Amino acid sequence: MRTSIATVSLSGSLTEKLTAASRAGFDGVEIFENDLLASPLTPEEIRDRCADLGLSIDLYQPMRDIEAVPSDEFARNLRRAERKFQLMRRLGADTVLVCSSVSPLAVDDDVLAARQLRQLAEVAQQFGMRVAYEALAWGRHVSTYDHAWRIVERADHPALGTCLDSFHILARGSDPKGIQDLPGEKIFFLQLADAPLLAMDVLQWSRHHRCFPGQGGFDVAGLLRHVLSTGYDGPLSLEVFNDVFRQAEAGPTAVDARRSLLVLQESVGAASLPAPVVPTGVAFAELVTPDAQPLAALLGALGFARTARHRGKPVDLWQQGEARILVNTGPSGLPHSRLRSSGGTPIDGTGLAALGLESPDPAGAARRAEALLAPVLPRRRAPQDVPLDAVAAPDGTELFFCATDRLELPNWLTDFEDLEHTREASNVHRIDHLALTQPWHHFDEAALFHRSVLGLQAQQSVDVADPYGLLRSRAVTNADGSVRIALTVGAAPTDDTVHAQHIALATDDVVAAARRFREAGGHLLPIPGNYYDDLAARFDLTEEELATYRELGILYDRDEHGVFRHCYTHTVGRVFFELVQRDTGYRGYGAQNAPVRLAAQHAAGGVTGG
Amino acid sequence: MRTSIATVSLSGSLTEKLTAASRAGFDGVEIFENDLLASPLTPEEIRDRCADLGLSIDLYQPMRDIEAVPSDEFARNLRRAERKFQLMRRLGADTVLVCSSVSPLAVDDDVLAARQLRQLAEVAQQFGMRVAYEALAWGRHVSTYDHAWRIVERADHPALGTCLDSFHILARGSDPKGIQDLPGEKIFFLQLADAPLLAMDVLQWSRHHRCFPGQGGFDVAGLLRHVLSTGYDGPLSLEVFNDVFRQAEAGPTAVDARRSLLVLQESVGAASLPAPVVPTGVAFAELVTPDAQPLAALLGALGFARTARHRGKPVDLWQQGEARILVNTGPSGLPHSRLRSSGGTPIDGTGLAALGLESPDPAGAARRAEALLAPVLPRRRAPQDVPLDAVAAPDGTELFFCATDRLELPNWLTDFEDLEHTREASNVHRIDHLALTQPWHHFDEAALFHRSVLGLQAQQSVDVADPYGLLRSRAVTNADGSVRIALTVGAAPTDDTVHAQHIALATDDVVAAARRFREAGGHLLPIPGNYYDDLAARFDLTEEELATYRELGILYDRDEHGVFRHCYTHTVGRVFFELVQRDTGYRGYGAQNAPVRLAAQHAAGGVTGG
Repeated sequence: MRTSIATVSLSGSLTEKLTAASRAGFDGVEIFENDLLASPLTPEEIRDRCADLGLSIDLYQPMRDIEAVPSDEFARNLRRAERKFQLMRRLGADTVLVCSSVSPLAVDDDVLAARQLRQLAEVAQQFGMRVAYEALAWGRHVSTYDHAWRIVERADHPALGTCLDSFHILARGSDPKGIQDLPGEKIFFLQLADAPLLAMDVLQWSRHHRCFPGQGGFDVAGLLRHVLSTGYDGPLSLEVFNDVFRQAEAGPTAVDARRSLLVLQESVGAASLPAPVVPTGVAFAELVTPDAQPLAALLGALGFARTARHRGKPVDLWQQGEARILVNTGPSGLPHSRLRSSGGTPIDGTGLAALGLESPDPAGAARRAEALLAPVLPRRRAPQDVPLDAVAAPDGTELFFCATDRLELPNWLTDFEDLEHTREASNVHRIDHLALTQPWHHFDEAALFHRSVLGLQAQQSVDVADPYGLLRSRAVTNADGSVRIALTVGAAPTDDTVHAQHIALATDDVVAAARRFREAGGHLLPIPGNYYDDLAARFDLTEEELATYRELGILYDRDEHGVFRHCYTHTVGRVFFELVQRDTGYRGYGAQNAPVRLAAQHAAGGVTGG
Repeated sequence: MRTSIATVSLSGSLTEKLTAASRAGFDGVEIFENDLLASPLTPEEIRDRCADLGLSIDLYQPMRDIEAVPSDEFARNLRRAERKFQLMRRLGADTVLVCSSVSPLAVDDDVLAARQLRQLAEVAQQFGMRVAYEALAWGRHVSTYDHAWRIVERADHPALGTCLDSFHILARGSDPKGIQDLPGEKIFFLQLADAPLLAMDVLQWSRHHRCFPGQGGFDVAGLLRHVLSTGYDGPLSLEVFNDVFRQAEAGPTAVDARRSLLVLQESVGAASLPAPVVPTGVAFAELVTPDAQPLAALLGALGFARTARHRGKPVDLWQQGEARILVNTGPSGLPHSRLRSSGGTPIDGTGLAALGLESPDPAGAARRAEALLAPVLPRRRAPQDVPLDAVAAPDGTELFFCATDRLELPNWLTDFEDLEHTREASNVHRIDHLALTQPWHHFDEAALFHRSVLGLQAQQSVDVADPYGLLRSRAVTNADGSVRIALTVGAAPTDDTVHAQHIALATDDVVAAARRFREAGGHLLPIPGNYYDDLAARFDLTEEELATYRELGILYDRDEHGVFRHCYTHTVGRVFFELVQRDTGYRGYGAQNAPVRLAAQHAAGGVTGG
């Protein structure tokens, strides 16, 4: 099916929008009138630009407040429409969107509306144009798709059809089932948008909070199935008004948009993509650092041993149980220069650069990622390296698809040479979860990426109060919880504070692990005494248990399924570690305790977040 | 009356919050439990810190999900409450807020609720504490203030009273009139917050969008009058959850908060402030620049003559009709180093630094500003200068209160020495309006400042689509429109783009003024041809009129009262000028045209905004 996007969905000048849409692989665009008005290009130049970029102009929009008005007003409207048809001819567009009137002059009279729309269609036809009539959810008299359709049906003109918009239909709570009964050839256009489920004024909701299909709470796929059942064969077109996308770079937003349409098409059986290959575990986390010593000290205190070294690069493998951390002192792509702690002091560039995910089919996982427009990374960095499939996530984290224990497949461990080491009694057995701070403008994109490309499940988004602003956090996980990634985003885009990433390590005995860490010279994040007084009030903990937690800075949470105990190390660069003792049933990440932890990190002067 | 503020209303660590509240002149604070939990200070240290800062601890809050539960659950709740009373004793707080339960365990049984609250009050009394019971707007069974009061009345215990919160009452649409019937001594606490009138889920509205009284749409003053009529003599306390204030610096937010309370007290006759002295015109606008030449060329082309020079400083006065522009090449306080155009190129520090406002009583205006916590500036910069009253607005703009034509008062013109100049035929007669871009975190503060300190009226806020994000704009004006200031704020806090300020000059003939400017070598902002095709479709303009507008880049708007024609000069530093021909009745600023203008400015590579 052809895909299209309204220029209003992307930021920048019209030229930037068209370029971004083309590069992301869209077949066409809707030209939003204000984008045309503000462009220094003539309509002919826009037409040529689109042609050069391989984009058709599928719709010109919107034409407002046309129908069901007194005749002198309608005469003026027709003259206005003629001007627009002339413009559309220059532009090479043949369909115009007319949205239901919000004018105080409009009357509640379907017969009049149909008669005037028929007249409009008659004029359109003389120009070789078609009119697609759409019900705005806040239209004065026409606000539902079935009402708009009844008027189109009554007008009965070949150049008049209807336009369906998933936002207007689903935000009103209309049942999209009735779409099945529409004749497909009279659906002239289909606009798709999703939105988070907010109880708010529908006009504000529409103008500020729309998002791409799969990023909100609407059943856009269900609606699309009904539309396709009518035989509709026009484009699937995205029309999204979103305050964040307006500020974001057009290029990544267009890719995110097209990815959402690909997933949507797959979900209704209209596109066949390589099947998702859900990761089954975390093979490794790779940290880059200008100086390995502070990380080596931290990992050593946590009980990791340096077990191997890369044959060709300055990369060490640290291991404990199934938890593997790579420490890379080679040049990294992380932006060092602007990193600042919350206190404003510059920090070094130590950060999380890559994740290895255990995959039942690394090549298949990479094929799906590529089909979903993820940037594919070179399989080999150096001629002697083992070839590995890898892609980049929206935040720049490199994702390697690994098969650590399957000898028949290329194994990343082959690049490493074992080092002598003593294996001590271990407290940590694997990575419980990773927390990755996302670029502010790409939080929704990140969740959709991890869901669609990796086949992970996205959990509910939660607000977390940092002393200097609200953070939002949303976890993506596989079914058995062996892969958990918490995606976090700050309160607002700002370069002043870089929030940290962190690695949570699973232990069966957080008290022992914390003690061992401290005895080995590690610094545990100190937690205020007031927190423990509150724990005592909220939970029936023994005095001894409380005293232990208080001594070590262990935080405590409990839900109906189990208990979660966790504590934090000091921070190196923008990375810190968490020790986590998780009861099987407990599904969360201790979000309840995050404000206390964040305040403690601010007090300690380090970077915060994750 | 005593004033207080909840620590949750301010950003930062508890210490930062307390310091900001004290410096802004609050008498006390409500300690929000999470702020205490996250603080490394012990309760005793917090108590001492407050005492040192001259702050009483008026409330500890909140205690949740206490009442109307099964007896075993209530027993646990009582134990939890006892722990909190112990804590409050250490803290030196004697009143706790209990908010109506949202627990699924709570039952709809007022008799049980009253009995359990009475038991709680009994325990509180043993500790010398009082319980203030409040209806949350989203409480499970108790969500209105009158319902909460009926339960308190039924419980009938001296240590149990009610807490009223203007947000919970007004957001529910409850009639606050019934408050009059409450016995004042049973209102244990009063929390005040305003909010913009949004149709949205009340919990989200409350948690993210509260603001200080006078910044939203609620009649907080009306509610306060009812409360005071009961004889309530406790503190007026602000409790505001706001995503923006959470990120803003605590110091300015606390000042903004206390200013809002002062204005509120004045409006109910509970405080007497010096009366507002509404400005009657714009005496001058002062630009600072590292290099006078580009501004001199621009002003000259606009028809301004350099008429006078400051006796002691490198400041020139440029005049045309009643429009006066000062050009200051002295050192300025503007932050130069980080200024960037939207294209990323560094720009010079040319900017608007000060405004002279004609005042019927400059000294009175300054007294009111000082009473409302505006930073008062020195009356004399140099010993020989005329003493002038001046204060700083929240965006740092210096506001001088002037009496240009009143010989009996100190006159700023006395500092200037006339220069010889030729007076040409003039097109511009005065400053129509000024557009000032506000710091992102202080937009609501700015509107309240201009309203309360200067006595201007605030108009509705409008959204304006810039190609790279939505702007918001709100005008403040005096009654006859001789002072109009458009306050604008960008889409998000960011250092990458500095939005411009601009000065709009009133003319009776924008066509002649634009031609003259162009002939004198000025550059008019080019407006796309597509804009004029659209004008032709929307309005009945003659071909000749259209051609003239198209030639000169004149924009056109019309409302039911009249026509507005305007065009823009090129930008110097972060300042540009607008030529404005305004029909008497037209009240706006051509917001409809702003997206086209902004796109044209981006295309021209200059700073945008205002």
